[in-house]
Amino acid sequence: MTNLMGEFLGTMVLIVFGCGVVANVLLKKSKAEGAGWIVITFGWGIGVIMGVFTAVATGAPQADLNPAVTLAKMMIGTYTAPHAVTTMVAELAGAFVGAVIVWLAFLPHWEITEDKGAKLGVFCTAPAIRSFPANIVCEIIGTMALIIPIFAIFSKGVGGIAPGFGPYLVGFLVVGIGLSLGGPTGYAINPARDLGPRLAHFVLPIAGKGGSDWEYSWVPVVGPLVGGGLAYFVGKAVGLI
Amino acid sequence: MTNLMGEFLGTMVLIVFGCGVVANVLLKKSKAEGAGWIVITFGWGIGVIMGVFTAVATGAPQADLNPAVTLAKMMIGTYTAPHAVTTMVAELAGAFVGAVIVWLAFLPHWEITEDKGAKLGVFCTAPAIRSFPANIVCEIIGTMALIIPIFAIFSKGVGGIAPGFGPYLVGFLVVGIGLSLGGPTGYAINPARDLGPRLAHFVLPIAGKGGSDWEYSWVPVVGPLVGGGLAYFVGKAVGLI
Amino acid sequence: MTNLMGEFLGTMVLIVFGCGVVANVLLKKSKAEGAGWIVITFGWGIGVIMGVFTAVATGAPQADLNPAVTLAKMMIGTYTAPHAVTTMVAELAGAFVGAVIVWLAFLPHWEITEDKGAKLGVFCTAPAIRSFPANIVCEIIGTMALIIPIFAIFSKGVGGIAPGFGPYLVGFLVVGIGLSLGGPTGYAINPARDLGPRLAHFVLPIAGKGGSDWEYSWVPVVGPLVGGGLAYFVGKAVGLI
Amino acid sequence: MTNLMGEFLGTMVLIVFGCGVVANVLLKKSKAEGAGWIVITFGWGIGVIMGVFTAVATGAPQADLNPAVTLAKMMIGTYTAPHAVTTMVAELAGAFVGAVIVWLAFLPHWEITEDKGAKLGVFCTAPAIRSFPANIVCEIIGTMALIIPIFAIFSKGVGGIAPGFGPYLVGFLVVGIGLSLGGPTGYAINPARDLGPRLAHFVLPIAGKGGSDWEYSWVPVVGPLVGGGLAYFVGKAVGLI
Repeated sequence: MTNLMGEFLGTMVLIVFGCGVVANVLLKKSKAEGAGWIVITFGWGIGVIMGVFTAVATGAPQADLNPAVTLAKMMIGTYTAPHAVTTMVAELAGAFVGAVIVWLAFLPHWEITEDKGAKLGVFCTAPAIRSFPANIVCEIIGTMALIIPIFAIFSKGVGGIAPGFGPYLVGFLVVGIGLSLGGPTGYAINPARDLGPRLAHFVLPIAGKGGSDWEYSWVPVVGPLVGGGLAYFVGKAVGLI
Repeated sequence: MTNLMGEFLGTMVLIVFGCGVVANVLLKKSKAEGAGWIVITFGWGIGVIMGVFTAVATGAPQADLNPAVTLAKMMIGTYTAPHAVTTMVAELAGAFVGAVIVWLAFLPHWEITEDKGAKLGVFCTAPAIRSFPANIVCEIIGTMALIIPIFAIFSKGVGGIAPGFGPYLVGFLVVGIGLSLGGPTGYAINPARDLGPRLAHFVLPIAGKGGSDWEYSWVPVVGPLVGGGLAYFVGKAVGLI
Repeated sequence: MTNLMGEFLGTMVLIVFGCGVVANVLLKKSKAEGAGWIVITFGWGIGVIMGVFTAVATGAPQADLNPAVTLAKMMIGTYTAPHAVTTMVAELAGAFVGAVIVWLAFLPHWEITEDKGAKLGVFCTAPAIRSFPANIVCEIIGTMALIIPIFAIFSKGVGGIAPGFGPYLVGFLVVGIGLSLGGPTGYAINPARDLGPRLAHFVLPIAGKGGSDWEYSWVPVVGPLVGGGLAYFVGKAVGLI
Repeated sequence: MTNLMGEFLGTMVLIVFGCGVVANVLLKKSKAEGAGWIVITFGWGIGVIMGVFTAVATGAPQADLNPAVTLAKMMIGTYTAPHAVTTMVAELAGAFVGAVIVWLAFLPHWEITEDKGAKLGVFCTAPAIRSFPANIVCEIIGTMALIIPIFAIFSKGVGGIAPGFGPYLVGFLVVGIGLSLGGPTGYAINPARDLGPRLAHFVLPIAGKGGSDWEYSWVPVVGPLVGGGLAYFVGKAVGLI
């Protein structure tokens, strides 16, 4: 049970920082308005670091914060299928609550931001060029670029890393994915990160909001899950897991 | 007594770097003028790292540098109430002196900077959109996003971090809070950080200064203290402390 | 044999992040379009970190990812000449495959990007001012600025670094080379990094691509190899190796 | 003797990265032209990290790279006066050679850069607002903000830091000084860093160069030395050394 609470809290922290940084950069009159991609990517990366520490400290040593990672670990055998599903639900719920917190933190900024797409963009991803096959491919590649290095960092072959440095490296990895592969689809690479906040956008009384773009919503769920599955097979093939 | 000196010196160092980076970015003719949010946030974060090392090295192993953190630790039982109060006073005094040093370092730049709000902004925070309830909420959320991950990083559940890596992680956490939640109120998240330099702004003979905005001054004091108290209850509820 | 697979996979990961970040910044409609030099350099640096972990974890403890480094280590005696050559081929092949993956991740963005030079620039380097002697000198200096500090970081004189911190430091070193010496030639400092993706550019059906600039292609191969050889002699002379 | 070689080589590496990043950002047609303050400060900081590793690895465990630091350590008793002076000369010589290497790396860019001040700025500092007393004060504060945290990081009170993390923290400290206090005078905070490259500017046949601004040259020598001396007294007073 603490496992679920840890994943819930860790993902909540991840999203407070992650959706928070997008709000900070996109919403009108924010002091960080227009601060750019380096700010976006470091905000998400630090969210990963702090989310992982929070999850580990509250009883979830796996600290996945991401159903695509949970899926890959279920294939490895870390989780049973029911355990994986409840873990994913906890991640999704944590992401939802994290997005509600971001909505609260930026409360006066929603009304003065006219761009409905920007407001939705605080919560969930949208492709730069809408093309479902290409968008799926990009999310698959991004997710594999997340999970395969995670396998590597924590592999026996590396021979251990200094205490506390693991979460930091994973955060830096997520910074790198944003910097390098985030442009075409906004790097969901995590179904909970996209669907939880999208649900929050759908239900919250956000001033002047538009639609929640449900048409696209399956891409950042299916793409990362496929990427997680493929990462498992690649990791197995090359001896990482 | 060394505890008080350590908190004084550590907070002083924090503010030299923290208010320094705002001066560097906002004051006219500074070589870093207009350098943006990534510079602001890393300046504050590195200030935290160096302030914590300075505090620890001069006899304050808690290295709070922040009355909101001190309050949460008093609730845990780390401090008695009188000890907590004297610690907070030391932090406030250190922040005041740090701000005086920044004023000196940028001495020729005050006169040529016409914007009174920018000059005040070097010392203390101001909201992007003035709304006391929303501003308080934002400061509470930011402070909880500071203290809960600090509880996590240093919790038993994490099982230790490499020597010297703790202050670095806390600094990165503060970078992340600035990146992700700093836009609406300028992330005081620390009563001493705001009130000490505001007092310095009030008493120093800054060329062409305006008012010290005392009307708002209680928000970045009360918000962080409430956030610190709430962080204690959340941390207790989820088993972090 | 695992040595070759590790170098292949590690260099592939390096290039996914490295050429990825250039695509992210240069291609039209990417969310990171125009994000600037700090993004480029951190993308490459994080690629190094993740590539090194991947290589080590898959059986290549040297984790060179770079024929210039492999050459220097062959001169030290780490590799026999045939072993060095096969390692270099593995690095080149990994770089080629990494570039193919970047092409796929950004698939809809090639057609809408008109600038043929930008599209080539995703794959390989070009000089800011074309002058073969000066360009060679710059690549030699950049490569020596890579390999001599690597010798230093892992030297006996330093007395060891915390587990997992080595790859991070090398990644930061590559960030630094980009920040400080990358402007004149785009810091190939690695023959595989330049030639592998250039070959990918040559053979892939990239929408609206131009020539692959073979005229310049020998500079980022010869320059780094000469730099690697000179780094060996300097490292030997000053007692680093 | 290896002590001198280590200080020479470490300071050379520092300046290759440090003056390199200024060239990269200021010189015309450089790919990093106009990349801004975050690039400048991280370039210098990574230069410190790599310079320190190089110095330690080649026999200079103190790895000062800075006569102001050497002076403070002489006052502590780490060096005899003659030893301190020869160490300072080695640092100065290393800085000179580092600047020559930067001149070479950017060879075609000097001619096309018309701004003589920018070309001088690659080598040495100049104040944003010329006022010798204020400039001296700023350099003294910056140097104290360097040396006091260095005392703290390596103090007994901290109880040790993970192997290899010390040079990284000092590099980050220098990033922070640039971010927070670098605007008024360009943060020399190191007599060798300023005087060595200024001498290189004076003697090198740089295309279209102007004067070497000898009138100001004593400020970034005297200011840091005074700051180093004051840092010793403060460090002593608060029990850091």
